Amino acid sequence: MEELKQNHKHGQELSKEFIGQIRQTIAENSTEEAISLITPLHAADIAELYDSLNIEEAKFLFFLIDKEKAADVIAELDDDDREKFLNALPSEVIAKQFIEEMDSDDAADVLGEMTEERQEEVLSHIEDYEQAGDIVDLLTYDENTAGGLMAKELVAVNQKLSVSRSLVELRSQAETVDEIYYIYVVDDNQHLVGTLSLKKLLLSSTKETIKELCNTEIISVRTDTTDVEVAKIMKKYDLVALPVVDSIGRLKGRITIDDVVDVIQEEAEKDYQLISGITEDVESSDSVFLLTRARLPWLLIGLFGGIIGAWVIGYFEGDISKYAGLAMFLPLIGAMGGNAGVQSSSIVVQGLANHSITKDSITYRLLKELMVAFMNGASLSVLIFVYNYFMSDSYALTISVSIALFSVIIFASLFGTLVPMLLDRYKIDPALATGPFITTVNDIMGLFMYLTISRFIFNIVILS
Amino acid sequence: MEELKQNHKHGQELSKEFIGQIRQTIAENSTEEAISLITPLHAADIAELYDSLNIEEAKFLFFLIDKEKAADVIAELDDDDREKFLNALPSEVIAKQFIEEMDSDDAADVLGEMTEERQEEVLSHIEDYEQAGDIVDLLTYDENTAGGLMAKELVAVNQKLSVSRSLVELRSQAETVDEIYYIYVVDDNQHLVGTLSLKKLLLSSTKETIKELCNTEIISVRTDTTDVEVAKIMKKYDLVALPVVDSIGRLKGRITIDDVVDVIQEEAEKDYQLISGITEDVESSDSVFLLTRARLPWLLIGLFGGIIGAWVIGYFEGDISKYAGLAMFLPLIGAMGGNAGVQSSSIVVQGLANHSITKDSITYRLLKELMVAFMNGASLSVLIFVYNYFMSDSYALTISVSIALFSVIIFASLFGTLVPMLLDRYKIDPALATGPFITTVNDIMGLFMYLTISRFIFNIVILS
Repeated sequence: MEELKQNHKHGQELSKEFIGQIRQTIAENSTEEAISLITPLHAADIAELYDSLNIEEAKFLFFLIDKEKAADVIAELDDDDREKFLNALPSEVIAKQFIEEMDSDDAADVLGEMTEERQEEVLSHIEDYEQAGDIVDLLTYDENTAGGLMAKELVAVNQKLSVSRSLVELRSQAETVDEIYYIYVVDDNQHLVGTLSLKKLLLSSTKETIKELCNTEIISVRTDTTDVEVAKIMKKYDLVALPVVDSIGRLKGRITIDDVVDVIQEEAEKDYQLISGITEDVESSDSVFLLTRARLPWLLIGLFGGIIGAWVIGYFEGDISKYAGLAMFLPLIGAMGGNAGVQSSSIVVQGLANHSITKDSITYRLLKELMVAFMNGASLSVLIFVYNYFMSDSYALTISVSIALFSVIIFASLFGTLVPMLLDRYKIDPALATGPFITTVNDIMGLFMYLTISRFIFNIVILS
Repeated sequence: MEELKQNHKHGQELSKEFIGQIRQTIAENSTEEAISLITPLHAADIAELYDSLNIEEAKFLFFLIDKEKAADVIAELDDDDREKFLNALPSEVIAKQFIEEMDSDDAADVLGEMTEERQEEVLSHIEDYEQAGDIVDLLTYDENTAGGLMAKELVAVNQKLSVSRSLVELRSQAETVDEIYYIYVVDDNQHLVGTLSLKKLLLSSTKETIKELCNTEIISVRTDTTDVEVAKIMKKYDLVALPVVDSIGRLKGRITIDDVVDVIQEEAEKDYQLISGITEDVESSDSVFLLTRARLPWLLIGLFGGIIGAWVIGYFEGDISKYAGLAMFLPLIGAMGGNAGVQSSSIVVQGLANHSITKDSITYRLLKELMVAFMNGASLSVLIFVYNYFMSDSYALTISVSIALFSVIIFASLFGTLVPMLLDRYKIDPALATGPFITTVNDIMGLFMYLTISRFIFNIVILS
């Protein structure tokens, strides 16, 4: 225990030395030493340890830890690691050693990753008929819905019961439930009619009925509510558990906050990947092939945009031939448009995600953005004007660059605001408008504006 | 209740009609109608409603809701809204109406936003001396540590007590605690020695002592553990509550998951803002001035990078004068370097954040990145070669652009991987290396490589 506490207090990962020591004991086949090393570890730590072991080492350790912890470890493993590991084991071992010890939601997640044939094989080895039924029920829900997130394990009591009767009922149901959080109150038809905290039950007189005690202002979701919506609701109302009902209000399961924390994190990671120009949910540990495939599409869009940019410049090639100095500021103008556009779009995307701007009209957002863009654009174009005034030999270039920079920042900011808001209005993920798409469009527009403005200004200078 | 349930099931925001209706009743001073409209609402919904009201309207509604809910609403408000609202109220009202009804952590958060003078004024009006003491204690902790996150409200029992004695103890302590989750077990010196779930207590025989029942494998943090570390631990071990101890192991408070969900989200948002080139934590609802200030620094870096880029191009001005076609691909090369670099750095930053690559060596990461970059670079440069082969009149340009594109993708990918890994090694936030910094450096390097390569190739062509 002391070691664990130390470990957590300092928030360290498992040390390389410790991992080396474990591998050493496995290589030496010293069962007892291995047991003494891993017994104090939490399931999540053992799962982390598994990342550094090969299949044979992992199997060796697995049969040394107790069943319940082993099931927790399996639930904590990465999808990829779990698949590899389970493929190396017979169905019966999976059923008896892991699935029977798991909560129904974890069991359904693990089975959901298997082929249908393998699923049936594993299910046939589960002795508890009710448990197998629960898992099969859960497998029917889409994994990105409340039904896919929920567990069947919960404590429900009929509203007619007295406090003392329900305590008896509670004792019999509580065996299968890890943590209770709330007691769900149902009517004779299993409709959810209220919730009751364990604390309130403990503090109440034994003669009251549940109906009198329970809180009837229930926050619940339906089995088909999306996981993102579930996360939003649990976060907004600070819930640790949320009951799930079917379309006619019958209690079907409950979702606990730990599963939803993952959804919140995945959502944030998705937006992060989109803005960085990555099309799939990849991790640094994925294969070179997967990483390449996730990155190539946005690079292709960038290439395509670059080719259009080349056309734009090609159209003005005569101007550049006459005055090559024009070329100097091509990348600056393009990049500044890209930067300003990404800033605007990401602020809108974040605002839409946390619902802080859903009530704003598009016109209001655009006007506000116009003011921000005006202040940024004006500051930057004054700066570049001063720079060029002293450093450049061409007044026409000095004026062109300043006006173009100001214009492109205004355009890019408005465009970066408008596109995600329009996407959102048409129920398309606004995060698609961040990153390479906005950058590329603003790049091209910036080049076009710069070269048009300078052609105009150079003509005036020549005419005057 | 039915209305609330409907509302949640569909996960809708408060409708504009509903908000209009409320403002109407306030304007008409119809107290009873207003009460009937807001009574069914959850505190989080009322807080959301407040965004759309002015101070006078908000004050009107406030005195119509019951004290406890009003305190919840205050705790749920945005920092800015709360500050504005509380500034409009006398200290005594704040103390009696809100602070006395709040959990210590929320109370400390609210007081922490006030001036010291105002803090003392409010505290002087709190009647419960113990509560005031708890708040003052909490105010001493840095808000980004476990001490700043924790609440003082918890249920702790001495390990020597029997189950029946501790149930009595529990009843007396539970009054002040919203949700219990775990019972913390302490020794005579208030050292945390174990935890016990309410469920286990309920299911045990009344004669056992707490010491026999409790779980001694405690996961705890110290008051000075950072909030990010707290979030990581609660996420990793799937905890809903985490005890906080001082440097000698005495129980000081507990952190609940709802506070940590906010930390997780803020962390993700911080990385997102850095990659989008925003230096401060701003929201779309912030003032034009704040938004401008948050965006200008990165735009200035972009401008500075653009000026260096202009120098680079200026150095090659003679080449561009001779063959203006070179200018056409300046933005393409710059942008592709930027895009590839952002992709690489964001994958590294994400991998470092979720600890999936902490065990990898820098050499391993660079080699893997080299392979990805090789595949992407080769595909793209073949494509641009084919394009230019048919579209361009200059073989020298065709070859130069292809080689430069390949080189810049390799360079940008390696650089985008290396910089965040080095920053992390020196304990600097690697997310600083995403976004405009990486883009700007890669832009400049791309231009330099492209123009150097083409000068070399054009010379060969001329010589041959």
